[in-house]
Amino acid sequence: MIRHSNYQVDPWSLRECALDLEVLAQSESLFALSNGHIGLRGNLDEGEPYGTPGTYLNSVYERRPLPYGEAGYGDPESSESVINVTNGKVIRLLVDDEPFDVRYGTVLEHDRRLDFRSGTLTRSVTWRSPADAMVRIRSERLVSLSQRSVAAIRYEVESVDSSVNVVLQSELVANEFVPEVKGDPRVAEALENPLVGEEHMSEGHRALLMHKTKNSGLRVGAAMDHEVDGPGGVTSSAESINDIARLTITSTLATGERLQVTKFLAYGWSAHRSRPALHDQVLGALASARNTGWDELLKEQRASLDEFWSGADIELEGDPEVQQAVHFALFHVFQASCRSERRPIAAKGLTGDGYDGHTFWDTEMFVLPVLAHTYPVAAKDALEWRRSTLAQAEERAKQLGLEGAAFPWRTISGQECSAYWPAGTAAFHVNADIAAAAVRYQDATGDTEFEGTTALELFVATARLWRRLGHHDAQGRFRIDGVTGPDEYSALGDNNVYTNLMASRNLLEAARLAATHGDAAQGLGVTVEEVASWRDAAEKIFVPYDERLGVHPQSEGFTNLDLWDFSLTPPERYPLFLHFPYFDIYRKQVLKQADLVFAMYLCPDAFSPEEKLRNFAYYEAITVRDSSLSASVQAILAAEVGALGLAYDYLGEAALIDLDDRQRNTRDGLHLASLAGTWTALVAGFGGLRLRGGELSFAPRLPQEITKLRFTLRHRGRRLSATIVPDHATYELLEGKAMTILHHGDRVDLGGSPVDAELPAVIAAPEIAQPPGRAPLHRHQSRPEGAVTSLLPGGLHAVEGGSEIGEEVVERFDTDRETDQSRIDG
Amino acid sequence: MIRHSNYQVDPWSLRECALDLEVLAQSESLFALSNGHIGLRGNLDEGEPYGTPGTYLNSVYERRPLPYGEAGYGDPESSESVINVTNGKVIRLLVDDEPFDVRYGTVLEHDRRLDFRSGTLTRSVTWRSPADAMVRIRSERLVSLSQRSVAAIRYEVESVDSSVNVVLQSELVANEFVPEVKGDPRVAEALENPLVGEEHMSEGHRALLMHKTKNSGLRVGAAMDHEVDGPGGVTSSAESINDIARLTITSTLATGERLQVTKFLAYGWSAHRSRPALHDQVLGALASARNTGWDELLKEQRASLDEFWSGADIELEGDPEVQQAVHFALFHVFQASCRSERRPIAAKGLTGDGYDGHTFWDTEMFVLPVLAHTYPVAAKDALEWRRSTLAQAEERAKQLGLEGAAFPWRTISGQECSAYWPAGTAAFHVNADIAAAAVRYQDATGDTEFEGTTALELFVATARLWRRLGHHDAQGRFRIDGVTGPDEYSALGDNNVYTNLMASRNLLEAARLAATHGDAAQGLGVTVEEVASWRDAAEKIFVPYDERLGVHPQSEGFTNLDLWDFSLTPPERYPLFLHFPYFDIYRKQVLKQADLVFAMYLCPDAFSPEEKLRNFAYYEAITVRDSSLSASVQAILAAEVGALGLAYDYLGEAALIDLDDRQRNTRDGLHLASLAGTWTALVAGFGGLRLRGGELSFAPRLPQEITKLRFTLRHRGRRLSATIVPDHATYELLEGKAMTILHHGDRVDLGGSPVDAELPAVIAAPEIAQPPGRAPLHRHQSRPEGAVTSLLPGGLHAVEGGSEIGEEVVERFDTDRETDQSRIDG
Repeated sequence: MIRHSNYQVDPWSLRECALDLEVLAQSESLFALSNGHIGLRGNLDEGEPYGTPGTYLNSVYERRPLPYGEAGYGDPESSESVINVTNGKVIRLLVDDEPFDVRYGTVLEHDRRLDFRSGTLTRSVTWRSPADAMVRIRSERLVSLSQRSVAAIRYEVESVDSSVNVVLQSELVANEFVPEVKGDPRVAEALENPLVGEEHMSEGHRALLMHKTKNSGLRVGAAMDHEVDGPGGVTSSAESINDIARLTITSTLATGERLQVTKFLAYGWSAHRSRPALHDQVLGALASARNTGWDELLKEQRASLDEFWSGADIELEGDPEVQQAVHFALFHVFQASCRSERRPIAAKGLTGDGYDGHTFWDTEMFVLPVLAHTYPVAAKDALEWRRSTLAQAEERAKQLGLEGAAFPWRTISGQECSAYWPAGTAAFHVNADIAAAAVRYQDATGDTEFEGTTALELFVATARLWRRLGHHDAQGRFRIDGVTGPDEYSALGDNNVYTNLMASRNLLEAARLAATHGDAAQGLGVTVEEVASWRDAAEKIFVPYDERLGVHPQSEGFTNLDLWDFSLTPPERYPLFLHFPYFDIYRKQVLKQADLVFAMYLCPDAFSPEEKLRNFAYYEAITVRDSSLSASVQAILAAEVGALGLAYDYLGEAALIDLDDRQRNTRDGLHLASLAGTWTALVAGFGGLRLRGGELSFAPRLPQEITKLRFTLRHRGRRLSATIVPDHATYELLEGKAMTILHHGDRVDLGGSPVDAELPAVIAAPEIAQPPGRAPLHRHQSRPEGAVTSLLPGGLHAVEGGSEIGEEVVERFDTDRETDQSRIDG
Repeated sequence: MIRHSNYQVDPWSLRECALDLEVLAQSESLFALSNGHIGLRGNLDEGEPYGTPGTYLNSVYERRPLPYGEAGYGDPESSESVINVTNGKVIRLLVDDEPFDVRYGTVLEHDRRLDFRSGTLTRSVTWRSPADAMVRIRSERLVSLSQRSVAAIRYEVESVDSSVNVVLQSELVANEFVPEVKGDPRVAEALENPLVGEEHMSEGHRALLMHKTKNSGLRVGAAMDHEVDGPGGVTSSAESINDIARLTITSTLATGERLQVTKFLAYGWSAHRSRPALHDQVLGALASARNTGWDELLKEQRASLDEFWSGADIELEGDPEVQQAVHFALFHVFQASCRSERRPIAAKGLTGDGYDGHTFWDTEMFVLPVLAHTYPVAAKDALEWRRSTLAQAEERAKQLGLEGAAFPWRTISGQECSAYWPAGTAAFHVNADIAAAAVRYQDATGDTEFEGTTALELFVATARLWRRLGHHDAQGRFRIDGVTGPDEYSALGDNNVYTNLMASRNLLEAARLAATHGDAAQGLGVTVEEVASWRDAAEKIFVPYDERLGVHPQSEGFTNLDLWDFSLTPPERYPLFLHFPYFDIYRKQVLKQADLVFAMYLCPDAFSPEEKLRNFAYYEAITVRDSSLSASVQAILAAEVGALGLAYDYLGEAALIDLDDRQRNTRDGLHLASLAGTWTALVAGFGGLRLRGGELSFAPRLPQEITKLRFTLRHRGRRLSATIVPDHATYELLEGKAMTILHHGDRVDLGGSPVDAELPAVIAAPEIAQPPGRAPLHRHQSRPEGAVTSLLPGGLHAVEGGSEIGEEVVERFDTDRETDQSRIDG
């Protein structure tokens, strides 16, 4: 799937210049607005047609039973599903009694634009009704980044060439029909009409609906208010019943006259607060929004985004598609998290109901590291959310016969919602991932208050888990057996390298924090002996290595497994898990996603440069990338080992996953981890950013397709930028105290003025193959003439004349690599 | 739980001398009658009270959906559940309008007896009604072993001390209320009232009901006819509606007068035959039964059992409980299988609805080897059933990406019904087990026609599976990774020793059969190259060994796993799988049941005597025996390594599993594999029977508690017996051609007269420990004075004075064992 022709390339917005109902659901995800608290899919204002109607409130879910054919002890009995709450987006329009519906009449013009700097979705439509009346409709929608409970819509209808009677019906609709609740009838029963009406109210231009979810018992309030501006003779009346509140506005528009309605929406929910309290809360938010007014909301919106972009922008030259994609990606990452405020950031943000709205390790390993350097407060909030679920994780650990905390594989509220434990509960690495995200946040901000409180609690709880989960064998090695690593095409392995290395870091960091914050640690019952046992386990961690192949097995014994027979796997049998049983997949050397390769990024010092190259090449050949979590990680390591063209192609995979609908499920929501991974592929891949104990190091290297890369990031109260061109990089401290960074291992002091640094030669990696048909899409079919393929040793530029010659250069350097492995990493 | 005091010890029957409703459900299982085609639980004649009403027809099941919280490719979508078919056992009695119900009035006498030689269940009750009328009721029930579709009941009521009006209502009842259909509501929906009425008929003393199952579409017919014998004035009338047919008989009985009713029942079912055809089939069987008559049915019953016992009886002195238990066990094994006739033998036979009436590997590995030596035709039939499901197994193999056949882990019809694949589909050893059962049958009978047809087909299909399931690694070893062995507390291991050894045998035997039956093999597409690849894989099979510990790991790496913490496992937390998650259990060294130990019995030449002892001791310490499949296997190996007291205790565990309700679920049906294992524990354990390529070898050795053991078995058209006393064994050929056997490795020719052979000394094993609290029950608390504990080297008898000294003797021989390991195995 490549980009739909309706979507236009533009650096700061996503534009759709025509309406194609085939991609309506995809558009709804792409054009979704959110602030991390409220999420509105990009549904058409008039409600229909839709792919999936979607209005979400972070953490408003319904509980549903989890069925088992053969249940086991400890299997979660219920799961949670995000629900479509009261829809306040709907503004229906009748033109001379004819409902405005794009499926009828003629759409003469359609333009939608999601603006990454204004934070609004604008729409412009010119429509000729079946009865030949022509109207122009303009709408602009925002979910406020400044006022967390507020969204607003400005809707304007203009008569183009005649006098028309128009009726606008602005609504709040609960329990909308949601298509495709399928499968288990009990699940369908739980999720159909999840809201029970508690109150409805309408007066003047205002209305409110209060509901409560049936099983999870969450109370939801939604309210709307309106400003109406039109020619004389406008009438309005409000009404409400259980699941609908409606303001009906009528007007007669002469040619060129406009009726404009500004709709303010406020949402609130609570598991504990009373109906009157929530009622007042919602109306209060609504009053505040109305008081702020539309124009001011727009200004606040832009100000929030200006602030974000000032520490997050990435500019690149040479690839306008990826330039747009990275802005799109960062915009959605920001939207999904900025006002989450101690609520989870779901795998799809609030853009769709895919994965039931659950949060996975994606958040900690893909999204939070980006936020830590671009919008740190959101990273902190997400970690505070994890801490808020510590009691549930401790309870789960007990149930599993463990100590400390066992965080859930997938959840909304904090309880484990995975019905298939080999790929859920057994994936204990999520605990180390949470700890790693806390370290990352810590290193990026130097937030010592966080370190002594939230970080310490998370580390102590997870260290206790690891200490109990592993054991020393007769040789004294600390083993972690029978767990599942990141790769979902393997399960229940012994000594997964990723898990073991991350657990080791987790234990060491816990020991460090416990020493630094002695009193607080003592308050958590940590003793000197316990800390010693953490250090011992961490130092004795078993990292299997296959001497014969010279590579690390993903888990112990992995390299003994049978190889996947790719000759029997035609393209239509991907993704594998939909066409082969797990039994078959698990017992073969085939990967869904980066696992050991991820470990090489996260724990760079645990591998020599030679090992990194051999490992990377080994796993590239067996990774089918059926997971959206893979490409960005592969991009980073490809860049590190010198496979810059390959890194570039993986960057494209990560960046364009939703714009190009690469996984064919963007309709269910955006792939937030892959979007965040775009930043990482650029900054950690081509920028070579690594962060060790608060020190920033860069090792920039550009693929030939990108002629310039500039990124800005935040670090410990500072803002700095790096501008990379093929032969040098320029670092600049934009704000904050002077600092020292590393550039390819050399110390560079940053103060008042920009500093240039040369880029050392990159030795191109030998040819690295992917499984047949699974190489990333090679987007630039013909490389520009005269482009720089790579920098040769000695600083010479190799100038290539054609498209395929880059490959030859790679081969030419094969021999060099054999004899001079130490130079791979610059 | 020890034996309920109501159950009396008697060698040839099970008697219940009082009624305790607490053990009613257990009694129903113990007193069940069956012929392998029809199964009637030992419900009271009057229908109520009951634990579980149970009337079963082999392979009559209902299909039900299998739910998944997260489904995977290849997960079976539906399962099958045995259903309670039309109940023909019911004969209700009213005494002066008072229903006879043991919960009301007074039971003055209660006696039930299951006779292992007559094959009937008799009952005698004296009851005083609440209105003070006293009646004596005698009933006798049989499920005909000679007429497969027939059951019969003789019911007699006698007035004891007054004149009473009695009414008998003899019924056929479909869709009885079945208690405790719980869990998933869709499952309950599928299994509640599974029968849809198609026809009902009544005339004279006869009646018939025809039904069809809702989802599986199986047609079931049940009919009854009656002979009524009573004083003058007996009236009768028949009636029927959709789910009930009833013959009502009235009589007035003066003191001492009796009303006797003989009820003949006929059953039939079909997936294909039309209603009229099945109707006629059932009435035809009924007519035949009536024509045979009650007395003749009794005679045929006894004749069938006489024939069985003549080749199956086991006598033992010194333990009347086990003597009864082994007769009980063999009776039920025979009942469950004798007329199965190409239908499966379920784990619970037809005695209850436990495990949904499914068949597992239990049949092939526990039941069929016993039948092969006692009633071979039933073993053959069961293997023919497996062959009849070959097409489904081949289809399943394809679905799993394999070749050949993948037989289901649990099934009724042949389709995989396991909803939890790590413990189901992944347990591929079932395929080698089926092949092994075919070899066993083959070796025990010399049935060459079977070898060239059914056996060949099964072997070719399973060899193809193994060849594809395994692969050669870089060292040339043939590995089978990611499969589950017999032990259900481990899953998805690499190179499970049991599986690999059995697969190797499977492949070699397939190669042998293909060579012997060249044309037939060619017909199955077998080529010389294919056969060579089987031999190569078999010879290169990887059998992991832990050099450090000197034991075989159950699967590769098993001995590296953490040990289970038994100190944190109080008795109430067994069975472990109900109190700990599989994740925890799988990753620790803890076994539910014999696994490697079973391999040592089945593949005795793959282990040295020293290895057997070390392995046995190692696994004893970590086997918690939560499975009923374990004790008999442990008994065999305990005997082989010289732990005779331990072997004796395990024998008791296997033998008394249902009589003592050791697993507390006998209510759901009998544990057929454990019952069959009683035979194996005695014959292969204390008799030392091994069978290699048709040659019988014995290595008898008795525990002190058993002073004499005699068993009869069939072998290749012969009957022979072995009588073992502490110092010698006597072998006798009872029927058939002269033959040679091995006695402790020495050839013994058997012809006309019995042959005596001395028993060599047994070197007692060193102390072998089980997990705390998990040692088998030590039934004889005080050993008889002067009993022989063991035979010392040199043929001297060690005479012990007390109960615990046997343990000391064991310890005394510890040193001997270290220096003379080669003598362990005699």
